[in-house]
Amino acid sequence: MFDFRLEATSGAARAGTLTLPHGAVETPCFMPVGTQGTVRTLSPTDLRAVGARVVLANTYHLHVRPGEDVVAKLGGLHRFMAWDGPLLTDSGGFQVFSLEGFRRVTDDGVEFQSHVDGARHVLTPERATEIQWVLGADIAMAFDHVVPGGADEAVARDAMDRTLGWLERCGHRHRDLTEGWKPIRQTLWPILQGGAHAALRLESLRRTVALADWTGVAVGGLSVGEPKPVLYDMLETLQPHLPGPIPRYLMGVGFPEDLVAAVERGMDLFDCVAPTRNGRNGQAFTPDGPVSIRNAAFREDPRPLDPDCDCETCAAFSRGYLRHLFVAGELLGLRLLSLHNVRFLIRLAGALRAAIRRDDVTRWAEEWRRRYTQTETQ
Amino acid sequence: MFDFRLEATSGAARAGTLTLPHGAVETPCFMPVGTQGTVRTLSPTDLRAVGARVVLANTYHLHVRPGEDVVAKLGGLHRFMAWDGPLLTDSGGFQVFSLEGFRRVTDDGVEFQSHVDGARHVLTPERATEIQWVLGADIAMAFDHVVPGGADEAVARDAMDRTLGWLERCGHRHRDLTEGWKPIRQTLWPILQGGAHAALRLESLRRTVALADWTGVAVGGLSVGEPKPVLYDMLETLQPHLPGPIPRYLMGVGFPEDLVAAVERGMDLFDCVAPTRNGRNGQAFTPDGPVSIRNAAFREDPRPLDPDCDCETCAAFSRGYLRHLFVAGELLGLRLLSLHNVRFLIRLAGALRAAIRRDDVTRWAEEWRRRYTQTETQ
Repeated sequence: MFDFRLEATSGAARAGTLTLPHGAVETPCFMPVGTQGTVRTLSPTDLRAVGARVVLANTYHLHVRPGEDVVAKLGGLHRFMAWDGPLLTDSGGFQVFSLEGFRRVTDDGVEFQSHVDGARHVLTPERATEIQWVLGADIAMAFDHVVPGGADEAVARDAMDRTLGWLERCGHRHRDLTEGWKPIRQTLWPILQGGAHAALRLESLRRTVALADWTGVAVGGLSVGEPKPVLYDMLETLQPHLPGPIPRYLMGVGFPEDLVAAVERGMDLFDCVAPTRNGRNGQAFTPDGPVSIRNAAFREDPRPLDPDCDCETCAAFSRGYLRHLFVAGELLGLRLLSLHNVRFLIRLAGALRAAIRRDDVTRWAEEWRRRYTQTETQ
Repeated sequence: MFDFRLEATSGAARAGTLTLPHGAVETPCFMPVGTQGTVRTLSPTDLRAVGARVVLANTYHLHVRPGEDVVAKLGGLHRFMAWDGPLLTDSGGFQVFSLEGFRRVTDDGVEFQSHVDGARHVLTPERATEIQWVLGADIAMAFDHVVPGGADEAVARDAMDRTLGWLERCGHRHRDLTEGWKPIRQTLWPILQGGAHAALRLESLRRTVALADWTGVAVGGLSVGEPKPVLYDMLETLQPHLPGPIPRYLMGVGFPEDLVAAVERGMDLFDCVAPTRNGRNGQAFTPDGPVSIRNAAFREDPRPLDPDCDCETCAAFSRGYLRHLFVAGELLGLRLLSLHNVRFLIRLAGALRAAIRRDDVTRWAEEWRRRYTQTETQ
C-alpha cells in the first residue's frame, strides 16, 4: 500500500504508478475536485467514464456541512459519495485561510467562522487529522498555514514555521489513529509552504523531509495569486531537492498550460477546480486553447468541442447545441462542459505520461504549447 | 409506421404498442419533457438508462430560441439533441396562451411577444406545422387555442371552434409537406379542446374525428388549473366515444396519482414536467408518496429514496447524501432526483401495463393508491 513505482523519466518529468488502498493511479495524474463530496455536476459514473482515478474532497467543507459524524454514519466518505476509487482529502488549511470571515490563528490552531452559518469552529492539527481519519480517504493532508501569494518573508516564514510545527502534531495524531490497522488504510502527506521565497521553500522541504519517511509530498501555497513565472521558478528551485522515490503533488494546479509546465518540472499529481468551474462558466478547453461556448460564432457550428476528444460531450453534441444549452440556461450544459474539461485534463496527463515514456516530453510539450497558445481564431 | 396495436384491455385501461419512425413504444407510456431540446439536467444516456422511449420538445421554445433554422442546420431535432428515439413536438399553442406577455388572437393565428427578448412573432396553424416539420419529430401536434381551466362556456366554445378551424389548416399544410416522402416520417395529431364543459368536449371529439383518419388523438387543455375531479370526470365522459384503434395522449399529465387515474380511464400516453421540476425542487416520488429530500429527518438516513427502484440514484446514493447535495446547493442533487422521478413514472406506466395484461388494473390501482396516499410518515 502507498507504494510509488517510478517507471520512466524524461528530463525532470516522471511517469510512475502509485498504489493506494482503493486502486492504482498512473502518474502524471489530474485529480478532479469534489469539494463537498461531489465533483460539481458530475456523478461517479461520469467520473469513471472520463477516466478519473483519484477524487478530492475537502475537510473544511465536509466538517462544517454535513459534519464528519454524518458522513461516518452514512458509511464513510467513499460510501457517502459512491466513489469506490482512491480519495484524497485536503486538510482544510487552505480554506480556513482563504474563505472570507473571522479567523484567529494561534500556534495551537485556528478558530474561524463557518461560511455556511457563521458558527464558530476550531481546527487544530489534531482535529484536522481526526476528521480526515473519520472521513476515511486514502490520502490525508497535513494541516497547514497558507499565506497569500504576495506575503513578505517574515509573514511567509512565520506560516512556514507554524506549518512545520503542525506537521509534527498531525504526524503524531495520525500514527496514533492508524496504529494497529492492518493493512494501513490511510497515509498522511506533508505540505510544503514558504510563499514565493525560494530560501524558505527549500528550508520547508529540508525540514519536512527530515521529520519522517513520507509516502508523498505536496507543494502548497502556490497558484494563490502570484505571477506564473514565480510558480515555475519555484518548481525549478524545488525540483532537484525533492525526494525522488515518492510522488509530488502540486496543489491547486491546474490550467492545462500549468499542468504541462509542472510535469516538465517534475510534478506528478495535480488538482484544480478550473475544469469544472470554467466549464460551468461556459469555457471549454481544446487543443487550440480555451473557447467560450456562448460565442455567437458557434450558433450553427456542427463540430464537436474537440474532435480529438472521446468524452460523451464531444461524441454526441455539436458546439451549436452546447451554445444553445448555455444561452437557454439549461443545466445540462454545465455538466457537459465540466465533463469535457475534466476529460481534457485527464487525457492531457495521459499524453504527457506517454511522452515521458518515449523520453520525448520536451518536444511534445513545445508542440502542445504552440498549438494551445496560438492566437485564438476559433 | 404510426401503427398502434392494442394488445390488452382491463376495464377501460389499455395496453398497446405504437410503432414510430424512430422506434416502438409500449403503452401506457410516460414521456419526459425536453422543452428546449433537453430534458432538464438529464443527458440522452440518462434518458435511455431510465427507459424513456418518447421525448417531448416544444415548438414555441425552439422557434424563439435557437430558431428552427438553426436546429435544421445542425441536422434536425434528433441530431441536435442527440436523441435517436421517437420525438414528439407540442405545437406551441399551450405556450402561446400560458406564458406571460402580449398576445393577439385572430382566426388567422396568434401574434405574441417572445418571453426571451420581447420580439414579436406570429404563429399560425401553417407556421406551427412547418416549424414542426423542419424540427422533424416523429409526432407533430396541431396548433390549438387553450383556455384557462375556469373559462366559461362561451370562451371555451370560441376556442374550441377556432382549434377545429386551425386543425383543418394544420392538416392541409401537413399533407402538403409530407407528400412524396416514403416512408412518411412524421404524423400529425389533433388536440381536443372544450375546457371543462362536457358537451363541448364531446363536440370537439366528434368534429375532430370526422375530419380525418388520425393516427392518434390528444386531449389538451386539462390539468390547467381545474379541480382534479373535473379532469377525471372529463376523461370518463370522453372515454366511451374515443376511437379505439388509435392511441390517446393526455397532455400535461402527470403526477403519479393522475397518471394512474388516467390510465384507468383509457388514456395511453402522458407527458409532464412534474418529475423534473419537482426533482429540482427536492421532491422525490416514492411508492409511499412524495418526500421532500431537504427534510432534516433524512440527515443520517442510509436508505435509498425508493428501495424498489432500479435507477442510478437509488442504486448508489443514500437519502442522507441526497439531502446533503440539496442543502449544500450541489447541482448533482437536481439531476439525481430528476433521474429518479422520471424513472418512477416510467416504471409506474410499466407496472400499469403489466396489470392491464393480467386484467387486474382496478385492484392494482387501488392497492397502489392506498400505499401512495397513506398519511406521510416518512
